[in-house]
Amino acid sequence: MQYPTPIAKLIDSYMKLPGIGAKTATRLAFYTLTMREEDVTDFAKALISVKRDLHFCDVCGNITDEATCDICRDQTRDRSVILVVEEPKDVMSMEKMREYRGLYHVLNGVISPMDGTGPDDLNIASLIKRLQNDEVQEVILAMNATTEGEATAMYLSRLIKPAGIKVTRLAHGLAVGSDIEYADEVTLLRAVEGRTEL
Amino acid sequence: MQYPTPIAKLIDSYMKLPGIGAKTATRLAFYTLTMREEDVTDFAKALISVKRDLHFCDVCGNITDEATCDICRDQTRDRSVILVVEEPKDVMSMEKMREYRGLYHVLNGVISPMDGTGPDDLNIASLIKRLQNDEVQEVILAMNATTEGEATAMYLSRLIKPAGIKVTRLAHGLAVGSDIEYADEVTLLRAVEGRTEL
Repeated sequence: MQYPTPIAKLIDSYMKLPGIGAKTATRLAFYTLTMREEDVTDFAKALISVKRDLHFCDVCGNITDEATCDICRDQTRDRSVILVVEEPKDVMSMEKMREYRGLYHVLNGVISPMDGTGPDDLNIASLIKRLQNDEVQEVILAMNATTEGEATAMYLSRLIKPAGIKVTRLAHGLAVGSDIEYADEVTLLRAVEGRTEL
Repeated sequence: MQYPTPIAKLIDSYMKLPGIGAKTATRLAFYTLTMREEDVTDFAKALISVKRDLHFCDVCGNITDEATCDICRDQTRDRSVILVVEEPKDVMSMEKMREYRGLYHVLNGVISPMDGTGPDDLNIASLIKRLQNDEVQEVILAMNATTEGEATAMYLSRLIKPAGIKVTRLAHGLAVGSDIEYADEVTLLRAVEGRTEL
Protein backbone atom coordinates (compact mmCIF):
# COMPACT_ATOMS: atom_id res chain seq x y z
CA MET A 1 0.00 0.00 0.00
CA GLN A 2 1.20 3.46 -0.93
CA TYR A 3 0.63 6.73 0.90
CA PRO A 4 -2.20 8.79 -0.65
CA THR A 5 -0.73 10.95 -3.44
CA PRO A 6 -0.91 14.33 -1.65
CA ILE A 7 1.05 13.06 1.34
CA ALA A 8 3.57 11.17 -0.83
CA LYS A 9 4.27 14.39 -2.73
CA LEU A 10 4.73 16.36 0.48
CA ILE A 11 7.12 13.72 1.83
CA ASP A 12 9.15 14.04 -1.40
CA SER A 13 9.28 17.82 -0.99
CA TYR A 14 10.40 17.65 2.65
CA MET A 15 13.10 15.16 1.64
CA LYS A 16 14.63 17.74 -0.72
CA LEU A 17 15.57 19.85 2.32
CA PRO A 18 19.09 19.34 3.70
CA GLY A 19 19.43 16.93 6.63
CA ILE A 20 15.90 15.58 6.26
CA GLY A 21 15.64 11.89 5.38
CA ALA A 22 12.65 9.66 4.64
CA LYS A 23 11.68 9.11 8.29
CA THR A 24 11.76 12.77 9.30
CA ALA A 25 10.02 13.80 6.07
CA THR A 26 7.19 11.34 6.80
CA ARG A 27 6.89 12.63 10.37
CA LEU A 28 6.79 16.24 9.14
CA ALA A 29 4.20 15.42 6.45
CA PHE A 30 1.88 13.75 8.95
CA TYR A 31 2.44 16.64 11.33
CA THR A 32 1.44 19.05 8.55
CA LEU A 33 -1.91 17.23 8.37
CA THR A 34 -2.59 18.22 11.97
CA MET A 35 -1.49 21.86 11.58
CA ARG A 36 -3.98 24.71 11.42
CA GLU A 37 -5.10 25.37 7.83
CA GLU A 38 -4.03 29.01 8.18
CA ASP A 39 -0.47 28.09 9.20
CA VAL A 40 -0.10 25.71 6.26
CA THR A 41 -1.36 28.34 3.82
CA ASP A 42 1.08 30.87 5.26
CA PHE A 43 3.88 28.32 4.91
CA ALA A 44 3.04 27.74 1.23
CA LYS A 45 2.82 31.48 0.58
CA ALA A 46 6.15 32.11 2.32
CA LEU A 47 7.84 29.49 0.13
CA ILE A 48 6.53 31.07 -3.06
CA SER A 49 7.33 34.58 -1.82
CA VAL A 50 10.94 33.73 -1.00
CA LYS A 51 11.58 32.68 -4.58
CA ARG A 52 9.48 35.44 -6.17
CA ASP A 53 10.16 38.53 -4.04
CA LEU A 54 13.77 38.07 -2.99
CA HIS A 55 16.70 38.76 -5.25
CA PHE A 56 20.29 39.89 -4.91
CA CYS A 57 21.10 43.53 -4.07
CA ASP A 58 22.50 45.07 -7.25
CA VAL A 59 25.36 46.63 -5.29
CA CYS A 60 26.57 44.09 -2.72
CA GLY A 61 24.90 40.79 -3.71
CA ASN A 62 23.09 40.40 -0.38
CA ILE A 63 19.48 39.19 -0.53
CA THR A 64 16.82 41.87 -0.40
CA ASP A 65 13.20 42.45 -1.40
CA GLU A 66 14.10 45.81 -3.00
CA ALA A 67 16.54 46.73 -5.76
CA THR A 68 19.28 47.81 -3.33
CA CYS A 69 19.51 46.38 0.18
CA ASP A 70 18.94 48.32 3.44
CA ILE A 71 22.63 48.41 4.28
CA CYS A 72 23.80 49.74 0.91
CA ARG A 73 21.11 52.44 1.06
CA ASP A 74 21.95 53.45 4.65
CA GLN A 75 23.85 56.76 4.30
CA THR A 76 25.05 56.68 7.92
CA ARG A 77 27.29 53.69 7.29
CA ASP A 78 31.04 53.97 6.77
CA ARG A 79 31.64 53.70 3.02
CA SER A 80 35.40 53.32 3.36
CA VAL A 81 35.28 49.67 4.51
CA ILE A 82 33.84 46.63 2.74
CA LEU A 83 33.54 43.34 4.58
CA VAL A 84 33.44 40.41 2.14
CA VAL A 85 31.47 37.29 3.14
CA GLU A 86 30.49 34.03 1.48
CA GLU A 87 26.72 33.97 2.03
CA PRO A 88 23.85 36.36 2.84
CA LYS A 89 23.40 34.70 6.22
CA ASP A 90 26.97 35.71 7.14
CA VAL A 91 25.87 39.35 6.81
CA MET A 92 23.17 38.68 9.41
CA SER A 93 25.74 37.10 11.74
CA MET A 94 28.01 40.13 11.41
CA GLU A 95 25.14 42.54 11.97
CA LYS A 96 24.23 40.73 15.19
CA MET A 97 27.47 41.93 16.80
CA ARG A 98 26.21 45.55 16.35
CA GLU A 99 29.73 46.96 16.09
CA TYR A 100 30.56 46.96 12.41
CA ARG A 101 29.29 50.08 10.62
CA GLY A 102 30.87 49.59 7.17
CA LEU A 103 29.43 48.00 4.04
CA TYR A 104 29.32 44.39 2.87
CA HIS A 105 29.93 42.38 -0.25
CA VAL A 106 28.42 38.89 -0.61
CA LEU A 107 30.25 36.48 -2.92
CA ASN A 108 27.38 33.96 -2.87
CA GLY A 109 29.79 31.05 -2.77
CA VAL A 110 33.47 30.17 -2.53
CA ILE A 111 36.05 29.00 -5.02
CA SER A 112 35.70 25.23 -4.93
CA PRO A 113 37.24 23.19 -7.77
CA MET A 114 35.58 20.04 -6.38
CA ASP A 115 32.13 21.55 -7.00
CA GLY A 116 33.21 23.23 -10.23
CA THR A 117 32.87 26.73 -8.74
CA GLY A 118 35.50 29.12 -10.11
CA PRO A 119 36.05 32.87 -9.53
CA ASP A 120 33.74 33.67 -12.46
CA ASP A 121 30.80 32.01 -10.71
CA LEU A 122 31.10 34.39 -7.73
CA ASN A 123 30.25 38.07 -7.24
CA ILE A 124 33.89 39.05 -7.69
CA ALA A 125 33.64 41.27 -10.79
CA SER A 126 31.10 43.52 -9.02
CA LEU A 127 33.42 43.77 -6.00
CA ILE A 128 36.33 44.92 -8.16
CA LYS A 129 34.03 47.47 -9.82
CA ARG A 130 33.02 48.86 -6.40
CA LEU A 131 36.68 49.21 -5.46
CA GLN A 132 37.38 51.29 -8.57
CA ASN A 133 34.56 53.78 -8.13
CA ASP A 134 34.22 54.09 -4.39
CA GLU A 135 36.13 55.74 -1.63
CA VAL A 136 37.05 52.30 -0.25
CA GLN A 137 40.17 52.18 1.93
CA GLU A 138 39.94 48.72 3.44
CA VAL A 139 38.58 45.32 2.43
CA ILE A 140 38.02 42.85 5.27
CA LEU A 141 37.95 39.25 4.08
CA ALA A 142 35.55 37.28 6.28
CA MET A 143 35.39 33.90 4.57
CA ASN A 144 34.77 30.78 6.65
CA ALA A 145 37.91 29.17 8.11
CA THR A 146 37.66 26.24 5.68
CA THR A 147 40.05 25.21 2.90
CA GLU A 148 37.79 26.74 0.25
CA GLY A 149 37.30 29.89 2.34
CA GLU A 150 41.04 30.33 2.80
CA ALA A 151 41.68 29.74 -0.91
CA THR A 152 39.05 32.33 -1.85
CA ALA A 153 40.53 34.84 0.62
CA MET A 154 44.00 34.26 -0.83
CA TYR A 155 42.70 34.76 -4.37
CA LEU A 156 40.88 38.00 -3.47
CA SER A 157 43.85 39.32 -1.54
CA ARG A 158 46.15 38.88 -4.58
CA LEU A 159 43.56 40.54 -6.78
CA ILE A 160 42.92 43.59 -4.59
CA LYS A 161 46.29 44.35 -2.98
CA PRO A 162 47.98 45.62 -6.18
CA ALA A 163 45.33 48.39 -6.31
CA GLY A 164 46.82 49.79 -3.09
CA ILE A 165 43.80 48.99 -0.94
CA LYS A 166 44.38 47.63 2.55
CA VAL A 167 43.28 43.98 2.77
CA THR A 168 42.71 42.39 6.17
CA ARG A 169 41.15 39.19 7.36
CA LEU A 170 39.44 38.03 10.55
CA ALA A 171 41.63 36.82 13.41
CA HIS A 172 41.90 33.10 14.06
CA GLY A 173 42.25 31.87 17.61
CA LEU A 174 40.44 30.46 20.61
CA ALA A 175 36.70 31.01 20.70
CA VAL A 176 35.68 33.11 23.71
CA GLY A 177 34.63 30.83 26.56
CA SER A 178 36.34 27.78 25.06
CA ASP A 179 38.83 25.41 26.71
CA ILE A 180 42.42 25.10 25.46
CA GLU A 181 42.07 21.37 26.13
CA TYR A 182 39.43 21.02 23.40
CA ALA A 183 40.96 23.35 20.79
CA ASP A 184 42.44 21.61 17.76
CA GLU A 185 46.16 21.97 16.94
CA VAL A 186 45.72 24.32 13.99
CA THR A 187 43.51 26.71 15.98
CA LEU A 188 46.02 26.66 18.85
CA LEU A 189 48.90 27.36 16.45
CA ARG A 190 46.97 30.33 15.01
CA ALA A 191 46.20 31.56 18.53
CA VAL A 192 49.91 31.46 19.49
CA GLU A 193 51.02 33.08 16.21
CA GLY A 194 48.45 35.83 16.59
CA ARG A 195 49.18 36.53 20.27
CA THR A 196 48.84 40.14 21.39
CA GLU A 197 50.76 42.10 24.03
CA LEU A 198 49.03 42.95 27.30
CA MET B 1 19.15 44.62 11.01
CA GLN B 2 16.25 42.29 10.34
CA TYR B 3 15.96 39.57 7.73
CA PRO B 4 13.96 40.71 4.66
CA THR B 5 10.25 40.04 5.31
CA PRO B 6 9.83 37.06 2.93
CA ILE B 7 12.67 35.14 4.53
CA ALA B 8 11.58 36.07 8.08
CA LYS B 9 8.11 34.69 7.34
CA LEU B 10 9.53 31.47 5.94
CA ILE B 11 11.74 31.04 9.02
CA ASP B 12 8.62 31.44 11.19
CA SER B 13 6.82 28.79 9.16
CA TYR B 14 9.68 26.29 9.36
CA MET B 15 9.84 26.87 13.13
CA LYS B 16 6.25 25.68 13.48
CA LEU B 17 7.38 22.17 12.46
CA PRO B 18 8.26 19.77 15.28
CA GLY B 19 11.93 19.50 16.21
CA ILE B 20 12.94 22.53 14.15
CA GLY B 21 14.35 25.46 16.12
CA ALA B 22 15.45 28.94 15.08
CA LYS B 23 18.88 27.87 13.78
CA THR B 24 17.63 24.99 11.64
CA ALA B 25 14.70 27.07 10.39
CA THR B 26 17.11 29.79 9.26
CA ARG B 27 19.32 27.24 7.53
CA LEU B 28 16.32 25.71 5.76
CA ALA B 29 14.99 29.12 4.71
CA PHE B 30 18.32 30.12 3.16
CA TYR B 31 18.55 26.72 1.53
CA THR B 32 15.08 27.28 0.04
CA LEU B 33 16.49 30.40 -1.64
CA THR B 34 18.96 28.22 -3.53
CA MET B 35 16.43 25.53 -4.52
CA ARG B 36 15.07 25.23 -8.05
CA GLU B 37 11.96 27.39 -8.53
CA GLU B 38 10.04 24.32 -9.69
CA ASP B 39 10.83 22.34 -6.54
CA VAL B 40 9.73 25.21 -4.30
CA THR B 41 6.45 25.59 -6.22
CA ASP B 42 5.82 21.85 -5.92
CA PHE B 43 6.54 22.07 -2.21
CA ALA B 44 4.01 24.89 -1.76
CA LYS B 45 1.40 23.03 -3.81
CA ALA B 46 1.95 19.81 -1.83
CA LEU B 47 1.38 21.71 1.44
CA ILE B 48 -1.90 23.17 0.22
CA SER B 49 -2.99 19.86 -1.29
CA VAL B 50 -2.40 17.90 1.92
CA LYS B 51 -4.81 20.16 3.79
CA ARG B 52 -7.32 20.46 0.96
CA ASP B 53 -7.44 16.99 -0.64
CA LEU B 54 -6.87 14.68 2.31
CA HIS B 55 -9.53 13.81 4.84
CA PHE B 56 -10.45 10.91 7.06
CA CYS B 57 -11.96 7.73 5.59
CA ASP B 58 -15.63 7.69 6.57
CA VAL B 59 -15.36 4.05 7.62
CA CYS B 60 -12.04 3.57 9.40
CA GLY B 61 -10.72 7.09 10.06
CA ASN B 62 -7.50 6.57 8.06
CA ILE B 63 -6.39 9.43 5.81
CA THR B 64 -7.38 9.21 2.17
CA ASP B 65 -7.97 11.41 -0.84
CA GLU B 66 -11.29 9.70 -1.58
CA ALA B 67 -14.44 9.22 0.52
CA THR B 68 -13.48 5.70 1.62
CA CYS B 69 -9.87 4.54 1.80
CA ASP B 70 -8.24 1.90 -0.44
CA ILE B 71 -8.16 -0.68 2.33
CA CYS B 72 -11.83 -0.35 3.30
CA ARG B 73 -12.82 -0.61 -0.38
CA ASP B 74 -10.60 -3.66 -1.04
CA GLN B 75 -13.04 -6.59 -1.21
CA THR B 76 -10.21 -9.17 -1.02
CA ARG B 77 -9.40 -8.23 2.57
CA ASP B 78 -10.54 -10.25 5.56
CA ARG B 79 -13.54 -8.40 7.04
CA SER B 80 -13.62 -10.46 10.21
CA VAL B 81 -10.61 -8.74 11.83
CA ILE B 82 -10.13 -5.07 12.71
CA LEU B 83 -6.75 -3.83 13.84
CA VAL B 84 -7.05 -0.63 15.89
CA VAL B 85 -4.17 1.88 15.74
CA GLU B 86 -3.54 5.38 17.08
CA GLU B 87 -2.48 7.24 13.95
CA PRO B 88 -2.73 6.93 10.14
CA LYS B 89 1.02 6.40 9.92
CA ASP B 90 0.65 3.25 12.06
CA VAL B 91 -1.50 1.78 9.28
CA MET B 92 1.41 2.33 6.87
CA SER B 93 3.81 0.60 9.29
CA MET B 94 1.48 -2.39 9.58
CA GLU B 95 1.03 -2.58 5.80
CA LYS B 96 4.80 -2.68 5.35
CA MET B 97 4.93 -6.13 6.97
CA ARG B 98 2.75 -7.44 4.08
CA GLU B 99 1.18 -10.15 6.23
CA TYR B 100 -1.95 -8.64 7.73
CA ARG B 101 -4.96 -8.90 5.42
CA GLY B 102 -7.72 -7.63 7.72
CA LEU B 103 -9.15 -4.13 8.11
CA TYR B 104 -8.07 -1.18 10.24
CA HIS B 105 -9.57 1.42 12.50
CA VAL B 106 -7.67 4.62 13.24
CA LEU B 107 -8.47 6.36 16.54
CA ASN B 108 -6.57 9.52 15.58
CA GLY B 109 -5.19 9.92 19.08
CA VAL B 110 -5.09 8.26 22.48
CA ILE B 111 -6.84 8.87 25.77
CA SER B 112 -4.60 11.39 27.51
CA PRO B 113 -5.98 13.32 30.49
CA MET B 114 -2.82 15.47 30.52
CA ASP B 115 -3.64 16.82 27.05
CA GLY B 116 -7.37 16.88 27.75
CA THR B 117 -8.10 14.10 25.24
CA GLY B 118 -10.94 11.86 26.39
CA PRO B 119 -12.68 8.89 24.68
CA ASP B 120 -15.16 11.28 23.03
CA ASP B 121 -12.36 13.03 21.15
CA LEU B 122 -11.32 9.78 19.45
CA ASN B 123 -12.87 7.68 16.66
CA ILE B 124 -14.35 5.26 19.19
CA ALA B 125 -18.06 5.68 18.45
CA SER B 126 -17.51 4.75 14.80
CA LEU B 127 -15.55 1.66 15.86
CA ILE B 128 -18.40 0.46 18.08
CA LYS B 129 -20.81 1.07 15.21
CA ARG B 130 -18.68 -1.06 12.89
CA LEU B 131 -18.67 -3.87 15.45
CA GLN B 132 -22.49 -3.90 15.59
CA ASN B 133 -23.10 -4.10 11.86
CA ASP B 134 -20.19 -6.11 10.57
CA GLU B 135 -19.14 -9.72 10.61
CA VAL B 136 -16.24 -8.82 12.91
CA GLN B 137 -14.88 -11.68 15.02
CA GLU B 138 -11.66 -10.20 16.35
CA VAL B 139 -10.37 -6.75 17.32
CA ILE B 140 -6.58 -6.43 17.58
CA LEU B 141 -5.51 -3.49 19.74
CA ALA B 142 -2.25 -2.10 18.38
CA MET B 143 -1.70 1.01 20.46
CA ASN B 144 1.83 2.21 21.18
CA ALA B 145 3.44 0.64 24.24
CA THR B 146 3.16 3.92 26.18
CA THR B 147 1.13 4.72 29.28
CA GLU B 148 -1.55 6.46 27.20
CA GLY B 149 -1.54 3.64 24.66
CA GLU B 150 -2.00 1.01 27.36
CA ALA B 151 -4.78 3.01 29.01
CA THR B 152 -6.60 3.39 25.70
CA ALA B 153 -6.24 -0.34 24.99
CA MET B 154 -7.62 -1.14 28.45
CA TYR B 155 -10.59 1.18 27.89
CA LEU B 156 -11.40 -0.31 24.47
CA SER B 157 -11.03 -3.85 25.73
CA ARG B 158 -13.58 -3.24 28.52
CA LEU B 159 -15.92 -1.63 26.00
CA ILE B 160 -15.74 -4.36 23.34
CA LYS B 161 -15.39 -7.62 25.30
CA PRO B 162 -18.95 -7.61 26.70
CA ALA B 163 -20.21 -7.79 23.09
CA GLY B 164 -18.62 -11.23 22.82
CA ILE B 165 -15.97 -10.18 20.31
CA LYS B 166 -12.44 -11.56 20.75
CA VAL B 167 -10.07 -8.77 21.78
CA THR B 168 -6.31 -9.28 21.43
CA ARG B 169 -3.30 -7.04 21.64
CA LEU B 170 0.21 -7.06 20.17
CA ALA B 171 2.88 -9.09 21.95
CA HIS B 172 5.44 -7.26 24.04
CA GLY B 173 8.97 -8.62 24.22
CA LEU B 174 12.48 -8.33 22.85
CA ALA B 175 12.81 -6.59 19.49
CA VAL B 176 14.23 -8.95 16.86
CA GLY B 177 17.99 -8.45 16.59
CA SER B 178 18.24 -6.73 19.99
CA ASP B 179 20.51 -7.58 22.93
CA ILE B 180 19.11 -8.73 26.28
CA GLU B 181 21.81 -6.56 27.85
CA TYR B 182 20.21 -3.38 26.52
CA ALA B 183 16.55 -4.29 27.08
CA ASP B 184 14.82 -2.41 29.90
CA GLU B 185 13.38 -4.30 32.89
CA VAL B 186 9.74 -3.91 31.89
CA THR B 187 10.36 -5.25 28.38
CA LEU B 188 12.33 -8.19 29.82
CA LEU B 189 9.54 -8.92 32.29
CA ARG B 190 7.01 -8.92 29.44
CA ALA B 191 9.29 -11.17 27.36
CA VAL B 192 9.54 -13.70 30.21
CA GLU B 193 5.80 -13.55 30.95
CA GLY B 194 4.97 -14.04 27.29
CA ARG B 195 7.44 -16.89 26.70
CA THR B 196 6.36 -19.56 24.22
CA GLU B 197 7.09 -23.28 24.12
CA LEU B 198 9.54 -24.60 21.52
